[in-house]
Formats: sequence, C-alpha cells, structure tokens
Amino acid sequence: MTATATRSWWGWGTTDRALPDDECVALAGLIPGLPERPRAVPEVRDLILAPSRVVPPAALPVTTDPDVRAAHTFGKAYRDVVRALDGDLRGAPDAVALPHSETDVVDLLDWAAGAGVVVVPFGGGSSVVGGVEYRGDRPWVSLDLTTLGQVLEIDRTSRAARIQAGTLGPALEAQLRPHDLTLRHFPQSFEFSTLGGWLATRAGGHYATLHTHIDDLVESMRVVTPAGVSESWRLPGSGAGPSPDRLFLGSEGTLGVITEAWMRLQDRPRFKASASVTFPEMTAAIDAVRAIAQAALHPANCRLLDPGEAALSGASGGEAVLVLGVESAAVPVGSRLAELADLARAHGGTVAVADGSRDAAADAWRSTFLRMPYVRDGMARMSAIVETFETACTWDRVAELYSAVRSQVGAAVREVTGAEGHVNCRFTHVYPDGAAPYFTVIAAGRPGSEVAMWDDVKTAASEVLGRLGATITHHHAVGRDHRPGYDRQRPEPFALALRAAKAALDPAGILNPGVLVDEVPVR
Amino acid sequence: MTATATRSWWGWGTTDRALPDDECVALAGLIPGLPERPRAVPEVRDLILAPSRVVPPAALPVTTDPDVRAAHTFGKAYRDVVRALDGDLRGAPDAVALPHSETDVVDLLDWAAGAGVVVVPFGGGSSVVGGVEYRGDRPWVSLDLTTLGQVLEIDRTSRAARIQAGTLGPALEAQLRPHDLTLRHFPQSFEFSTLGGWLATRAGGHYATLHTHIDDLVESMRVVTPAGVSESWRLPGSGAGPSPDRLFLGSEGTLGVITEAWMRLQDRPRFKASASVTFPEMTAAIDAVRAIAQAALHPANCRLLDPGEAALSGASGGEAVLVLGVESAAVPVGSRLAELADLARAHGGTVAVADGSRDAAADAWRSTFLRMPYVRDGMARMSAIVETFETACTWDRVAELYSAVRSQVGAAVREVTGAEGHVNCRFTHVYPDGAAPYFTVIAAGRPGSEVAMWDDVKTAASEVLGRLGATITHHHAVGRDHRPGYDRQRPEPFALALRAAKAALDPAGILNPGVLVDEVPVR
Repeated sequence: MTATATRSWWGWGTTDRALPDDECVALAGLIPGLPERPRAVPEVRDLILAPSRVVPPAALPVTTDPDVRAAHTFGKAYRDVVRALDGDLRGAPDAVALPHSETDVVDLLDWAAGAGVVVVPFGGGSSVVGGVEYRGDRPWVSLDLTTLGQVLEIDRTSRAARIQAGTLGPALEAQLRPHDLTLRHFPQSFEFSTLGGWLATRAGGHYATLHTHIDDLVESMRVVTPAGVSESWRLPGSGAGPSPDRLFLGSEGTLGVITEAWMRLQDRPRFKASASVTFPEMTAAIDAVRAIAQAALHPANCRLLDPGEAALSGASGGEAVLVLGVESAAVPVGSRLAELADLARAHGGTVAVADGSRDAAADAWRSTFLRMPYVRDGMARMSAIVETFETACTWDRVAELYSAVRSQVGAAVREVTGAEGHVNCRFTHVYPDGAAPYFTVIAAGRPGSEVAMWDDVKTAASEVLGRLGATITHHHAVGRDHRPGYDRQRPEPFALALRAAKAALDPAGILNPGVLVDEVPVR
Repeated sequence: MTATATRSWWGWGTTDRALPDDECVALAGLIPGLPERPRAVPEVRDLILAPSRVVPPAALPVTTDPDVRAAHTFGKAYRDVVRALDGDLRGAPDAVALPHSETDVVDLLDWAAGAGVVVVPFGGGSSVVGGVEYRGDRPWVSLDLTTLGQVLEIDRTSRAARIQAGTLGPALEAQLRPHDLTLRHFPQSFEFSTLGGWLATRAGGHYATLHTHIDDLVESMRVVTPAGVSESWRLPGSGAGPSPDRLFLGSEGTLGVITEAWMRLQDRPRFKASASVTFPEMTAAIDAVRAIAQAALHPANCRLLDPGEAALSGASGGEAVLVLGVESAAVPVGSRLAELADLARAHGGTVAVADGSRDAAADAWRSTFLRMPYVRDGMARMSAIVETFETACTWDRVAELYSAVRSQVGAAVREVTGAEGHVNCRFTHVYPDGAAPYFTVIAAGRPGSEVAMWDDVKTAASEVLGRLGATITHHHAVGRDHRPGYDRQRPEPFALALRAAKAALDPAGILNPGVLVDEVPVR
C-alpha cells in the first residue's frame, strides 16, 4: 500500500488497485452470459445511512463519520462486496471507536456494557465470514484496533516481540526488519489484516507445513474482557492446565478484545530453493503430496494446484502442479530440496528445479494470488460469482473430498446458474495426517441475485464438507456465515463450556453477539 | 514389565525392580547423615483401611478390595512414596472402578453425580503432583481406566489410530508395531502411564524439539462429561473457533473422563545418528543449545546435562554434556547431525560423534534415566530426600533461572537439612524461544520429617520460579500440589472461564475436586 493509497470502502485493499472498467469487461468475457458493462461503484454520500443511536462519553475516541461507518459495515467476502455495490448500508455500525490506548478499550467496554451497546472488534476488516458485522437489533460500535499498531518491545535473545494487536502485516514486518527478524506469517490478507485479527481467527499463513498457524507463534496474549484483563505469562511451553491462550485463539472477539501479544519470531531466511513438479492427474499428485507431508522434511512451500487452478494462474496447461520450496536461516537447503524432488519423482512427478531462488511457476502463482481479490471485485461488478471456501480432512478422505466437492458444487452451480462454472482447487497446507484443500468457484451470476445464488452454492458446499467430516473452515474462521456448519461440527459439551465461559467473561453479552454462540437476551 | 511382574502399591513400577536393601544402603553412603538401615516396606494387610462409604449399584464394576484401594491411594511423587512407607492409608479411595466399556464410565458418572460421590480418574497412577488423590470429605471412587487398553482402529493412509485412553505405553506401541507405526511419545513414565493420562496432563515426551508434547499428536478426542459425551472430529487442522481438544488437554480429569482418542502416528525411524558434546561450563553450553534450538534443525534429542547431572549419570567428570540425536524414517541423517555438530563447535563445544546409532554418553544417560525412580524409592527408604521439579522460561531468563534456582534451592536445602545437598539440572526440551530446565534435588532427610522437609524446599523452588516468570510445571501437570504456583500464573479471567466451564460440564462437582479449581460446596 503506498502512503497515499486509500482503503476501499466497498472492496478489497486500496482504491488505486481496483480493476479499471475495461479490464472488468475483458475478464467477464471468459464467462458467457454476463452483462456488457460493470455496475457503478456507489458513493457513500449518495447512500442512506441511518442516524447513529449511540452517544458515547466525550472522552472516548468514537466517530460517527459516514465514510468511516460505511467502511466498517462489511467484511470482504464476495457477498460483502456485492452488498456494498448494492449500496445497502442498513447494517452500518452506529459508530466506530479508534482507541489510542488499551485504557480506551477498557473504558469503551465498560461504557458499552452499561449502555447495552454491542461491540464488534475490527482489525483489518478482511473477514470473509461475516465476522465484523452485527446482525441484531441493539445499537453497535465497531472497535477498530488499527490505531494500536506498534511493536512495543523486542527480546532478541528469545527472538520474540511484544506487538500491539492492531498492527497490520506490512507495518509489523517493517518494524521487525531492522532487527533482522520476521514473524514469517503471511496470510493472503497480509496487507490488510492485523495481528489481533490473525489471533482471534486462528489465521493460517502462507507456508505449507510446521509453524504456519498463528496459534503456534504465540508466546503470550493480553486480552481485555468485560470481567478484567487477561495476561498469560511469556512461556516457550507449559503444561499448567488447559492453555489460556488456546481459549482466546479463535474466540473471534466473543470473549474479549486482544490488545497485544508476545510473538515468536524467526531469523530472516538466507537460503532458499524451489522446484515445480507436474503430474498428469490429481490422484498421483495427492499421493506425492502425502508422501512428502509424511516424510518430516518440512518444506516451506508445498502447494498443489489442480489442473483448473494451475491453468487459471498460468502455471500449466492441463496438468496438476506442485510448487515446492525450502528455506533456512542457518544452513544451505539444496540437499533438502533434492530429497523432496526425489519423493515427488518416485510418485510420478516431473520435476523442474528453479535456477534461482524462485521459478516461473511459483512467480506466476504468487502474482495471481495477490491480485486475486481485486479480480474478484472487478468480476463482482460484472455480476460474476467469484468466491472461495476452504477445509481440511484426513488423508483417507482427501481424494474423495476433492472429487465430491467438484462434482456436487459443480452440480449446484449448474442448477443455480443454468450453466457450467469453474470449481478449482489448491492445497494450501499439508499435514502428516491430512491436507487443507481450498476451492475457488467462478460462475455467471444474475444481476440482483448474486448473493442468493452464492448462498445456495455455499450451502451445497457446506453439506458435502459436513457429510465427509471435513472442517467447515481451515483458516477463514466461523463468524456468522459458518454457524450452521460450525454447530454441526462442534461437540455439544464444548458448546456448553464455551457459552458458560462467555457468560462469565461477558455477562452483558456485548462482544460480537451471534459469532460462535447465539446472541442471548440482554439481562 | 514382565508378564509376571507385580505393580508396587507403594513405589514406582514393579516390585521385582525395587532396589534390594544392600543397594539402598550403598546408595545412602553417598549422602552423609542417613540411617544405617532402610526402613521396612509395610504390608497392606497390616495397615488401617477405613470401611468403604460407598455402595455402588451391583451392575457397576467397582471393587473395595484392600490391596486395590491401597494401590490407588497415592500417585508416585517422593512425598507419595514416603507417605506410603509411613503406612498412612487415611486418604484411600472408598472403592476403585474398573470399567469394561465407555458405557460403564457413563453409568459410573451418572450414579456418582446422583449419590454425591467424587470420581478421580486414574490412568497409570504416575502423577507426581497429587493428581490422583482426593483430599476432601466426600466419599470417593478412583476410576482406573487401564481396563480400556486397546488400539481400536488404524488408518494407515492418514497414519492415525483410535486408541482407548487406558492403554499403557508398552501395550500401545506393541499394538502399533505390526503396522510399522509408532506414536513416538516416550515420557519417563512410559511403562506406567496411559494415553488418557498423557492427554489429561499435557505430557511431554522424550524428544527435545518439535512434536514431543502429546497436545500436538492429537487428532480428536472422546470425553465423557456428566453433561454428555464430547467427541471432536478427526481433523489435521481446523480454524473453527477455539479448539475443543485444547480445553480438555490439561484438564486433569476436572471436566470429563477421556475415554479414547485418534492419535497421529509416525513411521518408525530407519536412520539415526547421535553425538555428545562437552562444554567446560554451562554458560557456553546454554548459548550453544539456544543456537541449535533457533536454527530450525529439529534434533530429536538435544539434552543438556549440567556438570552435576552429567557426573551423576556417569556421562562426564565435571563438564556439561549435550547429547544430540537426529532421526528420520525417510532420509539419511548424517548431514543433519554434522550441521548440529558445527553449531555446537562454533559455541565452544567438543564433539564426539557416535560410531553406531548410539554413543556411550547417551547410553549411560538412558540407563540412569529409566532406573532413577527405583533409585529414588530406595533412597526414600533411607530417609534421603530425592525429588525433581521442572519448569520452562524464555531464553532471556534461562541462565539467570538456572543460577537462581541452584543458589536459592541450595540455600533452602541447607536451611532445612543443615547440610549441603545436590541441586542438579538438565534441559529436557528446547524451543526457539526458551528451554525447559528439569532439576533434581538430593539431600539428607530426617526420619519422620521427610515430607515436611521436602515441602519446604519445594516452596522455595516455586517461589524462585514464580518470581522469574517461569512456569510452575512444564510437563508434570498441576494436580493439587502445584495449585499455589498455578493460581499465581493463571490469568484471573481464564480462571473465571474455567470455573464456568466446569460448572456447566460437571454441575455436581464430582470430577477430581480441588485440581485446577477449588472444590465448590455441593449443591
């Protein structure tokens, strides 16, 4: 993001990177049946925004500026973008809080609990599951943490840093770089998401194996709850009772507001090597990826693109492509890449080791990857349906899941749109006991019906996942949109425990109601 | 354990491996001021055992056999052994349940909740923190799960198995070996502890880095709570809310009874290499271990013995010894060991690479390690104080902690015993951000006062740990003995949440009361 770039209120990222109209039209040409021109992006000043229902104390840093309220109305899912293009601001927050300190957060919760005002924590606002919008009847405030964006302390010996929760990815890495350290957590949303958001949603990073989930990078957390501030000790490991941090990780703003965390850092990689491997079909590719995941070689990258996904990113013409990468800050990695390549060859792959630290397939993939949300927005303006969903399951079901999703979601697309769509897949993360397939759906929508059409397709997708025992979300979180799938997956005694924990920490039920657990009537 | 061996009711392991009297005497010669003869081990039939206060339904598999009750009275801490030698069975359970099925567990909890009977889950009974004894006034039943000891199902593709919670370590590995698989979790208590116990206490395995904690080896768990059975889905990874498994991991029998789990397995290692490294003093050794832990080379073994510990195990005469090991099921590991050795040399270590797959220092260490609990028992019979405690902290404090513990616990030993004792240390686990030092105290006790003397030394140890922000337990759990240190460490809002979760799952408060949270008055 350049210093002068403006965040888009309706779509992904910054306004300067939104696709121009002619490019929207060109892209839409790939899908038969779409309109000829992109719909206009509305101006907030032309839209109806209800008067704010809250009057916070003057000492609290809260704004009711219409542009700010509009920019905090939606997350960044496809259905959010379409609703924003529809200009529907009925769900806008009554106000937006921009705290200058943790004390401001404490004071805001105190006031809100007393006044019966709902508080929804907001990091970078990149939720794709309805995690940052409130759908109930009470007045509500969006609590934007990005004003708390500093790395406060660095412990070089332990390689850890105390970091404020509102720190966006690029600012976080920029503050670590002078110390030659990195958090090395790069979700696709990196530029537009925060440490606190990653922690609250159990974000998955770019890397395929080992410590890629934010869960494993946390040393301790500080969380403001209505019942007090929770701060765990900085520990590399502990067996003292159930982990306090693991209760707040994934709590999605329902139990408290994460204000800072001590995070485990790494030395910046000095040695890198990569290769791309092609497979004529997915079954052999899946077997190869499983063998690699079970060999404890821990590649940094192990991203399998199915033929459709590989073609879309320009990485192949009809074959499955596996992108392998190895990194180290300590030792050369050529021999490790060779071990991985041997395994891939043993499973029928054709290996092309990159000359430098990157190869063409990886570059093509990365470029497409980072631009994808902007493309999605441009195609949404053309009434195309472009959305993703992700999951994970054990290896015994991976091939069946891949096949069942493509078949049944493909059928749902045909039924909903009356035409063929694309249902592509990549594996974003691999584990010794399973994989995390990530699906992209591209189809023709009908202007005015896009959200309902996508919701039908997504319902079909969730049905397949639930039936095969695959998780409703691997790293996109639950929010409000995934509640049915989550409720099916979650053991009922754990639901009892979670509701009880919430009632103890948030007795007024003001924190992100409806996420993870049902909103309870106000006492 | 041989087929005919009998479990000791008062001490560690099996009776056939208890030290003979003359060996007890010889060992005690190392510590001035101990009695000349070992105290006798009492026979249960000579001791006072109160009549059982419970009358369970005849359909429940419950016994009031005196020997069985005696064998379930204590865990296996030093203070447990001394109390058993004292013949004090006042704390014995009123009965012991030996379920034939999960249904028996459900029925037992139903009956107990209605009858106001406390239930304390018991795996191998190797708790060293008072985790398996009840200290309140209600009648209580020890629920021994070892009757549920089968590997029920194996998924070779995903490398996972469904295993009953009462399976002891050797039986577990024996059932996996025909499939060429291993759980590869080897705590010191391996022979005499169960999967369910490991899960309930967040056990740490033998390996120094990466996936050594049982937490990371769990795919899903089944837990019988008084409010219903909780079963999580088998998933390699999921971001759907806070992890249900992570709430039950470390819950130490307070939230429910773990009955089975799907566990992640590994191929049996084919390649091994090891080396031992000596350092003239601990500071350089600590720096070397830190460099290795931060290099992402993931050694299987990285065990640092301080000079006192190394001397005790015969591994050196006055130097610190670092035992390094590398293993793989997939690729040769010679080059990885060389990388580790280079790092050790760069920090002043003198490296001896083992010729075969093991070296002398590692063998000496392993032999001492497995025999240590029997030695402890033999010395307890001589009124020696022999006990351990373990912790973890970040690298910025490791050297200070090592020094402060040795100095202040040494002073406490002098004050309590009037003589010098041994305070030795090894690092059992290392992390990129810290280490887990494990201390052994050996000193002369006074017959009849040993428990009180140890409790005073332990209080001093816990004070140092708490002051330096080191965890009260890295892998021995909290139980009843660590409550003060745990309460100091635990964030109060998390305590609120945990108490609320327990009240929701165990409304009658029958499950292991006093562990993790205070016993609440019966409703």
